[in-house]
Amino acid sequence: MSEQAGAARLEIRRHRDGEAQSAMDWVAEEVPVALVFNGISHAVMMATPCDLEQLAVGFALSEGIVSRRAEIFDVEAERICGGTEVRLDIAQPAFLAMKERRRSLAGRTGCGVCGIESLGLLDLSPDRITARPLVADAATIARAASELPARQRLNQLTGCAHAAAWCGLDGEVKAVFEDVGRHNALDKLIGHLALQDLSPSDGFVFMSSRASYELVRKAARMNIPMLATISAPTALAVDIARQAGVTLASFCRQNGFVEYTAGG
Amino acid sequence: MSEQAGAARLEIRRHRDGEAQSAMDWVAEEVPVALVFNGISHAVMMATPCDLEQLAVGFALSEGIVSRRAEIFDVEAERICGGTEVRLDIAQPAFLAMKERRRSLAGRTGCGVCGIESLGLLDLSPDRITARPLVADAATIARAASELPARQRLNQLTGCAHAAAWCGLDGEVKAVFEDVGRHNALDKLIGHLALQDLSPSDGFVFMSSRASYELVRKAARMNIPMLATISAPTALAVDIARQAGVTLASFCRQNGFVEYTAGG
Repeated sequence: MSEQAGAARLEIRRHRDGEAQSAMDWVAEEVPVALVFNGISHAVMMATPCDLEQLAVGFALSEGIVSRRAEIFDVEAERICGGTEVRLDIAQPAFLAMKERRRSLAGRTGCGVCGIESLGLLDLSPDRITARPLVADAATIARAASELPARQRLNQLTGCAHAAAWCGLDGEVKAVFEDVGRHNALDKLIGHLALQDLSPSDGFVFMSSRASYELVRKAARMNIPMLATISAPTALAVDIARQAGVTLASFCRQNGFVEYTAGG
Repeated sequence: MSEQAGAARLEIRRHRDGEAQSAMDWVAEEVPVALVFNGISHAVMMATPCDLEQLAVGFALSEGIVSRRAEIFDVEAERICGGTEVRLDIAQPAFLAMKERRRSLAGRTGCGVCGIESLGLLDLSPDRITARPLVADAATIARAASELPARQRLNQLTGCAHAAAWCGLDGEVKAVFEDVGRHNALDKLIGHLALQDLSPSDGFVFMSSRASYELVRKAARMNIPMLATISAPTALAVDIARQAGVTLASFCRQNGFVEYTAGG
């Protein structure tokens, strides 16, 4: 089998119907990735080490460290110390604002929530997006649901990766990014859109995972009008989507889906 | 339908085979939970608001904030400010050590990795467990895999919760905890074992999720001899399990499983 970015091969022992045999198998890589802004290490996250430039750019945008692509001057990744360091060079005003937030939060971190140290610092009231609202349509969802599986190359090999897909308004799957973490997969996709200068308001995101609070929050911050997921949403994901005006469709399959932002 | 802890009911619109109809449906709750140690807010994580006493005790143990149950004097949860605050009263030496680590890490957080701000602070070399090694056995795994689904009450209702089960050496499922986050589900289970004074070395953990680095690290820290999961492991999870001497079995089904710690 050929090399696949983000996958590693190792010896395993497979047990089935009372028989056991040793074999080589593929597993998804999960490595610590440190994001360093203007020389300051800001966060370490566990991620699949492919498309790390996209990951870093997407994280910087979806977490509000920079407000637009043009504030990122340079990105470079280097393997060190059992992990990968991704160094971003960002505009001085964004960097100063980041340092100020770090001071007030006393330890802002990678996954958006768990670095916050007290409830009062959580923002559970997102602004409404300005993108034109998208109505979830059965044919569009069905097309995305039918096209995605063949594009999940890492997951086909390992069974361990989530996918975030960028879809056109007709449901065509245009780009897919994979990662062991669903929020990383979404950040990679957001970074790709920014690096390709594609508008996040001209399509929707389709994810292989459940819909958590964090995914909806990132989508809303990027002005993405619809998030569709294969699995279930949480109550807070629904609440945030309704507040932000992001259409949330879950349990998306070829023969149907559930829209969570129709009521409420 | 009766009340279920951790689930909320809301109006949705279900689309299937070209038809659409409004209905009420259950979703899993996801709320910010702040862990406060001796008056200091230490971490906020997104979790399902049930079994929070177990969550807090399990987190304190699996993250090494306390080294044993007896160092936790009191735990109480209170709903405030759009979330829940869980206050723990812990022994002074453990509290002082925690404050010292916080100072050196400049922002230690909820999910074990993403609060760490540089790669050098990551510990990817766990000690070996002292529990008697467990050999993954097909009949044992099959029993756990067959018993778990009926015990996943929140997931049956919502499709959005992971489960961590405590199993006897014969595979009997003895206790199940659920959460929208898999690491929270495991912490709830670990807290339950501690609160019930059950030894984590006399059985194994069976989880409905994939096996990440973090789950294996928590299991190793608690001296749990085997982690079995329904879905795939990551490469780092396998690496950490092999180093720590924790047996790792994944893709666990009634008719087979894959053992990842047999080779290596």
